[in-house]
Amino acid sequence: MKKKVLVVYAHPEPQSLTRQLVDVSVGTLQQHGHEVLQSDLYGMRWKAVFDGDDFPTRADPERLGFVTESGHSYSSGEQAPDIAAEQQKVLAADAVLFQFPLWWFGMPAILKGWLDRVWAYGLAYGYKGAGNRYRYGDGAFKGKRALLSVTVGGPAEDYSPRGINGPLEQLLFPITHGALFFPGMDVLPTYAVYGTGRITAEGVAAAKAAWSARLERLFEDAPIPFRPQNGGDYPDRHVLAHHVAVGQTGLAVHVAEAEPSLPPLEMGAGTWP
Amino acid sequence: MKKKVLVVYAHPEPQSLTRQLVDVSVGTLQQHGHEVLQSDLYGMRWKAVFDGDDFPTRADPERLGFVTESGHSYSSGEQAPDIAAEQQKVLAADAVLFQFPLWWFGMPAILKGWLDRVWAYGLAYGYKGAGNRYRYGDGAFKGKRALLSVTVGGPAEDYSPRGINGPLEQLLFPITHGALFFPGMDVLPTYAVYGTGRITAEGVAAAKAAWSARLERLFEDAPIPFRPQNGGDYPDRHVLAHHVAVGQTGLAVHVAEAEPSLPPLEMGAGTWP
Repeated sequence: MKKKVLVVYAHPEPQSLTRQLVDVSVGTLQQHGHEVLQSDLYGMRWKAVFDGDDFPTRADPERLGFVTESGHSYSSGEQAPDIAAEQQKVLAADAVLFQFPLWWFGMPAILKGWLDRVWAYGLAYGYKGAGNRYRYGDGAFKGKRALLSVTVGGPAEDYSPRGINGPLEQLLFPITHGALFFPGMDVLPTYAVYGTGRITAEGVAAAKAAWSARLERLFEDAPIPFRPQNGGDYPDRHVLAHHVAVGQTGLAVHVAEAEPSLPPLEMGAGTWP
Repeated sequence: MKKKVLVVYAHPEPQSLTRQLVDVSVGTLQQHGHEVLQSDLYGMRWKAVFDGDDFPTRADPERLGFVTESGHSYSSGEQAPDIAAEQQKVLAADAVLFQFPLWWFGMPAILKGWLDRVWAYGLAYGYKGAGNRYRYGDGAFKGKRALLSVTVGGPAEDYSPRGINGPLEQLLFPITHGALFFPGMDVLPTYAVYGTGRITAEGVAAAKAAWSARLERLFEDAPIPFRPQNGGDYPDRHVLAHHVAVGQTGLAVHVAEAEPSLPPLEMGAGTWP
């Protein structure tokens, strides 16, 4: 069935591996009859910095509070036009891909600034004005899929379960769990290409083929089984119930299959090359 | 003894809690005879987006590669002036404080863009042109201290060892370990103020007092005991040795006291209020 897919990407160089993988996204998805929307953040000269200019009318002209003003501008329909346009693209999409190079173990600033500005109060958090009633598996973006595609300079072993940088999926947890599952998206295991600093032409070809294969299963692959807030595991909506992941702490407890013997956040991680 | 401390902060509102805590930093540090350098990122209208304009001369005019051009511009002394100026401030400082509101479980884009641009190849990574020889406890910033001060909208329990957001120190691991310990800094446990959306005047006063007390111990408090790359725990510089943190995986294995019964990343976390 035909779907709409939004591709948000953050690299200014058309020959970069990131952009080559964006080209694969567009080609593969269109070949399968899907409609592709694009947000080329560098090309759009996306405003990265969330500031007072983003609030054409102010709830409180005396003191700039981002939550207050984000909520006011969203609910009153007085948002900055570029923010509103991106929200409409996300709301129209069945899936959102984020394609970027890993910089200091996170998103480039231009992409972080897309989240900071587009993920408004009343939409991505504080949905329906109900505080935290809808979050982590519930919210405005429920039913949509999300998938990160990251290019990583270092070798895969540095990001392995005991690798010196930490496991990639745990480094990305603030994005996958914190920014995407939070407003309700089903987040697929990250696709990663490692060792991009020394990648060969064969490596690039293999990475493109593997990414194309992931895209073909975009609407079939199982998402990371993050525990939904309202599914019973968080009786008070704050802390994991005592009988769940007994005696464990840390990020991994929020993934449903968490067992002491299995490091769940690695299970679905991209393992190319 | 008199020291130099650089305060890098990211909030445009002078009345915000973040900025009130910056005022405490300046006051307390100067009171103790230290010299304070400031980087008011919003006030400076800091350029958040790392792009081709940051490279006045290009190693490769045909294809923009950030690692290549960052290394070329740093080693040739042809950097963008704002980047070079910030590097000089960091190099002059004995400690660097980062003060910001937690947005989507990470730094505001303007601060991420400070790291993206200022942490150049040859300086913060690829030090001495020796690949990964110097990193994680070694490098250009060895001997300097770093400390995050974050203001958090949600309640502390959401960031507790089994809290629904994940433990704060694990969410910040890409910054503390990945961006600050990586180039050699000693990173202190994060100072956090929670529940800022509903904080009272008494809460603000208590938060300021607690922050001032932390600053008084800035050069005495023990850093987070991240394992140094070159201290023996990573024999091949990539993966933790088998005899260390036996059978464990995930971010916590990179903290030295890691024991199965103790969640080490929570031990030093700020717990206010």
